[in-house]
Amino acid sequence: MARRGTNLDRVGGFNDAVVLDAIRRSEQLSRVELAEVTGLSGQAISNIARRLLDAGLVREAGRLRGAGLGKPRTLLELEPTGRYSVGVHLDPSVVTVVLLDLTGEMVARRPVDQYADDPDLLIDGIAKTIEEVIAESGALRERVTGVGIAAPGPIDVERGVVVDPPNLSTWHLVPLRDALGERTGLPVVLDKDVTAAASAEKWAGRGGSFLFFYLGTGVGAGLVVGDEVIRGSSSNVGEIGHVIVDPDGPVCYCGRRGCVGESSQPRYLVQEAVAAGVLAAGIDLDDRPAVDEAFARLCALAAEGTSAAREIVVRLAGRIAKVVEDIANLLDLDRVVFGGPHWEPLAPVLGDAVRDALEGRFLLRAVHPFEVTGTALGTDVGAIGAASLVLDRTFSPNPSVVGER
Amino acid sequence: MARRGTNLDRVGGFNDAVVLDAIRRSEQLSRVELAEVTGLSGQAISNIARRLLDAGLVREAGRLRGAGLGKPRTLLELEPTGRYSVGVHLDPSVVTVVLLDLTGEMVARRPVDQYADDPDLLIDGIAKTIEEVIAESGALRERVTGVGIAAPGPIDVERGVVVDPPNLSTWHLVPLRDALGERTGLPVVLDKDVTAAASAEKWAGRGGSFLFFYLGTGVGAGLVVGDEVIRGSSSNVGEIGHVIVDPDGPVCYCGRRGCVGESSQPRYLVQEAVAAGVLAAGIDLDDRPAVDEAFARLCALAAEGTSAAREIVVRLAGRIAKVVEDIANLLDLDRVVFGGPHWEPLAPVLGDAVRDALEGRFLLRAVHPFEVTGTALGTDVGAIGAASLVLDRTFSPNPSVVGER
Repeated sequence: MARRGTNLDRVGGFNDAVVLDAIRRSEQLSRVELAEVTGLSGQAISNIARRLLDAGLVREAGRLRGAGLGKPRTLLELEPTGRYSVGVHLDPSVVTVVLLDLTGEMVARRPVDQYADDPDLLIDGIAKTIEEVIAESGALRERVTGVGIAAPGPIDVERGVVVDPPNLSTWHLVPLRDALGERTGLPVVLDKDVTAAASAEKWAGRGGSFLFFYLGTGVGAGLVVGDEVIRGSSSNVGEIGHVIVDPDGPVCYCGRRGCVGESSQPRYLVQEAVAAGVLAAGIDLDDRPAVDEAFARLCALAAEGTSAAREIVVRLAGRIAKVVEDIANLLDLDRVVFGGPHWEPLAPVLGDAVRDALEGRFLLRAVHPFEVTGTALGTDVGAIGAASLVLDRTFSPNPSVVGER
Repeated sequence: MARRGTNLDRVGGFNDAVVLDAIRRSEQLSRVELAEVTGLSGQAISNIARRLLDAGLVREAGRLRGAGLGKPRTLLELEPTGRYSVGVHLDPSVVTVVLLDLTGEMVARRPVDQYADDPDLLIDGIAKTIEEVIAESGALRERVTGVGIAAPGPIDVERGVVVDPPNLSTWHLVPLRDALGERTGLPVVLDKDVTAAASAEKWAGRGGSFLFFYLGTGVGAGLVVGDEVIRGSSSNVGEIGHVIVDPDGPVCYCGRRGCVGESSQPRYLVQEAVAAGVLAAGIDLDDRPAVDEAFARLCALAAEGTSAAREIVVRLAGRIAKVVEDIANLLDLDRVVFGGPHWEPLAPVLGDAVRDALEGRFLLRAVHPFEVTGTALGTDVGAIGAASLVLDRTFSPNPSVVGER
């Protein structure tokens, strides 16, 4: 595919985006520092800074005066209210809408009230919640640049379609992007939930090379390698549910034994807990609320130190660590970040146990360290990630033909 | 990390590289077509074409005359002799040196004669072979832009060091890049063998998202996702030897059972063949030449259709397909390309068998097709890939600050 020029309307050009991104990364920078950091001339920085100030994207933030600095330097920083973006996380059990300001700060959040199996009703509910979130935040509507949606895979990103989300049996080939675009009048981008979560992590923290390990209805992986979000050939990266982690594990619906997806589900862990006498028998494994409640109890017991309960989480950690090890070795990663609805209750035991299980196993440990962490973004990581997809476009200098026109 | 400008000395700038790459991709293009493809103005194309012609990187290749075309258009194409690059593949059993012209065509190749365990002697041999290959090709020495080395991992790419290549027990932390740079006076880049092979495939054929599955002393994966070669945090991607593919498989040195690396080795397959009565007993499994010979016989029998021999390769295909499936699902790939010294003898049976094993298994098949192929570059793929690392730098418009200076 030949490379082409791209119009970056929102920020007015490649170098404007470079400068805006440099300000974001350093929080505050003077024009002189911007010239040093970006390699652009003082004159160019001056012009770009003027455009960014006029566009309301940055603001002046006082002066820096110091020994040998000559005349005081005015610092530039992002204008938080300059732009906003909406994030929608379509989870099989709850849909969350958030609004981020230009600095990536969450200024409002709200779950969608009318959760409905009917796609049309649910999309109406999402559109209504988006307007409520904007109103609640006090953001100027015209400064909202777009909506990002994080949806379970597989998705058809070209057509903006959710193909077959798990636990939403009535959803098949729903054209979510365009439907939400029509209802809100905003540009809408669709991405996979795990990719959005990885994008949020990259945005909030460090780049580098990491795996976002999502523990929810199913397990999934979001990938950032060398500061870049990896999307694959159709934006459907991260299907890891059928990696074999336990040759003696349960038979999966795929026909194999010991797949990580099956044996990471609350249902399976609760079953183990009953077998081990940690939980009382008689839980109906097909009753989801009952399983969720039993799972919460199991996690609490493990966190309190009940050894048989801990043992179950430690075994889970061993299985998860195997996948992490495989992916880290395949992609030469420097860390794993855990998140998703089932991560929080498991975290007190699972984090350390994964770290222990990886100890001495990671083949590239000789070359560089490997870190195990949980997301600092909490349960909203998917929705925040969805919104950061939109922010990302504002700050990314898209490599393309520029300058010589 | 803030983005900065980069000097692309070899081709004189971002847009020059864009134009050069567009010519490479289309083989021949007129200036008018170049303007269309790149989005640059006619005047810019005119200036850039002049610079590329002056630098000897492109040449005029006749005129295109057709109905409605107006005045005849002069076509531009790469000047093959304009630049050359050297590729060195450091394999545990043979070191190969190749020379590519600017179009990526191999114009000379030669194995290193004095294969030696002593790093200094071997590096001397490589340097000597590089000069021989250049002399043999008739290339002007000053048009050789650099040397790429493909080495087994782990490597320390920052320091240009080969850490601990398998089967080269005397090699530990050998500073190969600088040693070869000193001896040749050429810029040298070091990369992992599998990454070089993937780079060669990308260069020679289509981009897209694929896995290069290397079958040699050990198995490894080179990765190209969305047209980009993936290198990971330390350029050590592709360690896939310990992915579990057969819960009932042999115990690996890592302590687990059924790792793909162990059960893909000739030694293991020969052992299976003896157990199945395909090969006569009495082969010393610690005698490498004897194992290699037995392996060749096994492959020949399988290719001839001997059913017990075929069965062994089909089982191997099942194990390999499991890894391919896992990685394809993780990275949302559209194909796997096989290569490496053990691929060629296995290919007649293994290719189809992997295809069969993946049939109906690939989870993303619903979204897009998945292809199984062998490399068209043969056993030199590592060395060609090493040289293409150098070529890549010539053609890649490095995204950076440009234009407004």
